[in-house]
Amino acid sequence: MSSSPSAAEPGFARVALLGLGVVGGSLARALASLDQGPVVLGWSPDPAERRAALAAGALSEAPERRSGALAGADLVVLAAPLEACRSLMADLAREADAEATIIDVASLKAPVAEAVRAAGITERWVGCHPMAGSEASGFAASSVLLYQGVRVWTTIAAPTAAPRERRVHALWRAVGAYPASIEALEHDRRMALVSHVPQLTAVALARVLLEAGIDVSELGPGGRDMTRLAESSPTMWHDLLEHAPAEAVAGLRRLAETAWETADRLEAGTVESILDGMREAGAWRRSAAERVRP
Amino acid sequence: MSSSPSAAEPGFARVALLGLGVVGGSLARALASLDQGPVVLGWSPDPAERRAALAAGALSEAPERRSGALAGADLVVLAAPLEACRSLMADLAREADAEATIIDVASLKAPVAEAVRAAGITERWVGCHPMAGSEASGFAASSVLLYQGVRVWTTIAAPTAAPRERRVHALWRAVGAYPASIEALEHDRRMALVSHVPQLTAVALARVLLEAGIDVSELGPGGRDMTRLAESSPTMWHDLLEHAPAEAVAGLRRLAETAWETADRLEAGTVESILDGMREAGAWRRSAAERVRP
Repeated sequence: MSSSPSAAEPGFARVALLGLGVVGGSLARALASLDQGPVVLGWSPDPAERRAALAAGALSEAPERRSGALAGADLVVLAAPLEACRSLMADLAREADAEATIIDVASLKAPVAEAVRAAGITERWVGCHPMAGSEASGFAASSVLLYQGVRVWTTIAAPTAAPRERRVHALWRAVGAYPASIEALEHDRRMALVSHVPQLTAVALARVLLEAGIDVSELGPGGRDMTRLAESSPTMWHDLLEHAPAEAVAGLRRLAETAWETADRLEAGTVESILDGMREAGAWRRSAAERVRP
Repeated sequence: MSSSPSAAEPGFARVALLGLGVVGGSLARALASLDQGPVVLGWSPDPAERRAALAAGALSEAPERRSGALAGADLVVLAAPLEACRSLMADLAREADAEATIIDVASLKAPVAEAVRAAGITERWVGCHPMAGSEASGFAASSVLLYQGVRVWTTIAAPTAAPRERRVHALWRAVGAYPASIEALEHDRRMALVSHVPQLTAVALARVLLEAGIDVSELGPGGRDMTRLAESSPTMWHDLLEHAPAEAVAGLRRLAETAWETADRLEAGTVESILDGMREAGAWRRSAAERVRP
């Protein structure tokens, strides 16, 4: 229909990838798999992660120092927990090449935008949030396919960053993802419901089961899926909870009320009213399959 | 170490499989894939399911009438929703061969045991509950691999049924499952926590998200997993909710309290206390991977 975005926008030639966990490591693998992809230099505070990524062929180089990865890069990718993304912005403003585009992949965008404003680099920043990840952590859990078919939200903090945002969209498309722009606060309000509430629900359910003396080996596929997120990294979630939007609190309270009401109905034997809710929820859950891919 | 169970116990020669949905259809496929497996005659009230199972090579025959499948069978498998399993027991007591072993695969066992006692066939019944299934329904969702590595709980209502239970265990092992005996009420108490509570939590979460205007396409892998069970069959769940053990009500209330308490902590900014719960839940969730298979 239209010309390809990568044809319309020049690609990045040299990428500095700071952070080689699931999110950063998977991006390294995906970029390494491209024909005519950029040169990717990766850095992690953990030397073992650097060696693993290099040995896997996911990086062109893995310098010992962060400055070694940054030198000459026209794109800097911060694949770190939220608080690290915030605190590194001032450093990057000094250390990265003056024209380099800086992106982060933290799951909340307004707190990063705040740090970007404080660092004075709004014109160069494109905030990204790929809706992908894993309950597992580290480069060992990374996958070349992580971004295939995945929505990546992007946001900017200055209108002048729009051309850079288009180039970043082209990069995400190249690794199979579907980028779309969103305003940072609106993104975070949605993530509170889409990410925080399911995460905290999984933890609450796992705690109910463990307190009741259930062994995890007793779970069927449904119970396993419903508790999988309990294994997510507390380090990552520390920052996301510290900056949780108010919608996360409201969503959790609504979940608690709904579960309590369901218990009332179950106790009263009014099963049909529970099934009505199940049918409504099932129709909602199936509705995506009836639509084309975003 | 010991001689194989199938060598120790004679197998079944001719199986009548009543119900060809995910659970029955997958058992038909798995039995058809065995060397020297039994002859399997399948029946479903839905002619399209009978044709589909026959066309897939999962059945030796698919008679139009239930009696056609039952004639000569030494094992009758009832793969139907709970209430149908209960109401069919009296019919099977008359229609099945006098020596035939009768098993059902409903997810609660005490209500079936009650019907079995009323039908006077306790000596011939082995209640089974494979911890497998799918949010999808019908033969189309069946799989030859459904029972691989799956726990199958079995229960009997008379000590004299013990030799039949051993033969049924051998059948489940033949299709890759891990059978284990349990008392019916104890089984149901555990299922209330392991199955009812996760199911109703998934529905509650899906309703919170849909009420908040979230589109299902916005979910990442975590949110998708956490709402998958909302697509489960309301028909199947009708019966399971009608017979829900009291532990399901108590478990849901505990979940509601835990979610509400988490919201309090999030609102108060006491993130460390939430993370403590996450670490505890994560350690519990990971504990299965550190043990050998049941």
